Amino acid sequence: MTMQMTQQIELLRDRVLAMAELVEKALDGSVKILSHRDELEARRILDYEEEINALEIEIDQLATQMLALTQPVAKDLRFITAAIKINSDLERMGDLAVNIARSSLQLLKHSATPSVGEIPEMAKQVQEMVRIAVQAVAHGDDELARAVLRSDDSVDALKNQMFEQMVRGIEADATAAAANVDLIFIAHSLERIADHATNIAEDVLFFVKGIEVRHRTSLGSIASS
Amino acid sequence: MTMQMTQQIELLRDRVLAMAELVEKALDGSVKILSHRDELEARRILDYEEEINALEIEIDQLATQMLALTQPVAKDLRFITAAIKINSDLERMGDLAVNIARSSLQLLKHSATPSVGEIPEMAKQVQEMVRIAVQAVAHGDDELARAVLRSDDSVDALKNQMFEQMVRGIEADATAAAANVDLIFIAHSLERIADHATNIAEDVLFFVKGIEVRHRTSLGSIASS
Repeated sequence: MTMQMTQQIELLRDRVLAMAELVEKALDGSVKILSHRDELEARRILDYEEEINALEIEIDQLATQMLALTQPVAKDLRFITAAIKINSDLERMGDLAVNIARSSLQLLKHSATPSVGEIPEMAKQVQEMVRIAVQAVAHGDDELARAVLRSDDSVDALKNQMFEQMVRGIEADATAAAANVDLIFIAHSLERIADHATNIAEDVLFFVKGIEVRHRTSLGSIASS
Repeated sequence: MTMQMTQQIELLRDRVLAMAELVEKALDGSVKILSHRDELEARRILDYEEEINALEIEIDQLATQMLALTQPVAKDLRFITAAIKINSDLERMGDLAVNIARSSLQLLKHSATPSVGEIPEMAKQVQEMVRIAVQAVAHGDDELARAVLRSDDSVDALKNQMFEQMVRGIEADATAAAANVDLIFIAHSLERIADHATNIAEDVLFFVKGIEVRHRTSLGSIASS
C-alpha cells in the first residue's frame, strides 16, 4: 500500500529541509573558523558533510521512487523534479562550506595574515540569502524566492570589490600572496553558495508558479565583468 | 497519441548530446582564446552559451513531460532522472567555459602576462575527460564512465601544482599579481569542469547499472589538501 501523494510530498519536503538545515550549520561553522579562529569547527563540518552526502542519496532515491510508483502531475510533479535539483544544489553548497573551512584553516597557518576585509559582511549576506531560500522551499513562497533573486547582485558587487582589494594587497606586499589567494577563494566559494541559493529560488518559482526564470540575464557582455 | 517510450528516450538522449556538443565547442573556444590569443572566439562562446541555456530549459521540459505522460520504470526512469542531472551539469560547464573566456580576455590585457604554465596540458586532460563522459552518455557505456572517474585525480594534482607555481610567481614579481590571479581562476574553472564530467560519469553508472557511486571518497581529511 502506498502513502497518499500529499504525505509523500511532505516526507520529501521534510528530508530536503533536514538537508538544508545541515548545510546552514556547515556554512555557519565554516564562517566561524575564520572569524573566531575556531579550528575545532572543522571536524564538525566534516560530520555535517557526511550526513549531507547520505541525505543526497536518500532524497534522490525517494524522489525516483515517487516518480516510479505514483503518477504525479502538475504541481506535485514540479515539486518532485524541483526537489531533485534543489538536492543537488544543497549538496554542492555543503562541499563549498568544506572548501571555505579548508581555505580558512590554511589561511590561519600563514605568518602574514592579511585583513579579511569585507569577508564577514559578504558571509552575512550569503547566509541570509540561504536562510531565505530555505524558507521559500519550506513554505512554497514565491515572494521569498524573488527576494533571494534580488540579493544576488549585491553579493556579486561585494565579491568584485574584494577581489580588487586582495590583488592590490598582493601588489603592495608579495609575501602575503598565498594568504590573499586563500581569501580570494573564500570569497569565490561564498559567491558560489549565493549562486546555488539563487538556483534554489528559481526552482521554488518553478514549482510554485510553474514559471521558468532561468537565464533571463545571462546575455550580458562577456567583456563587462 | 504518445510516442513509444523507446523513441522518447532516444529523443531525450539526442537533445542531451546536442547540448554536450555545444559545451565541448564552448570549452574548445575558451581554451583557444588563451593559447592562440584569439579574442574573436569570445563572441562565438556567448552564442553557444545562449543555445546551451535554451536547450537546458527544453530538456527539463521534455523530461518532466515524459515523467508526467508515461509511467517510466526501471532503466527508463533512471535514464530520465539522470538526464535531468546531466542537463544541469552541462549547463554549468557552459557557464564555466564562459568564465574561462572572460578570465582569458582579462589576462591578455595585462602588460605583464606570466607564463601560462601547465594550463594547456590541464585543458587537454579536461577536454578528454569531457569527451569520454559524453561518449559514455551516448553509448550508455559504464567502462567509459569508470575511465572518467579514474582521470579526476590527475587533473586535481595538476591544478594543485599550478596553484603553487602561480603563488610563487606572484611572490617573485608582485606586478604580475592580477594576471596570476586570472590564471588561478582559469585553472579553477577547468578543475570544476572536470568535476562536472565526473558527476556525469556517476550518473551514467547510475542509469546503466543502477549503482550509486557518489561520495565514495568524500571523507578525506580536511587538512590534507
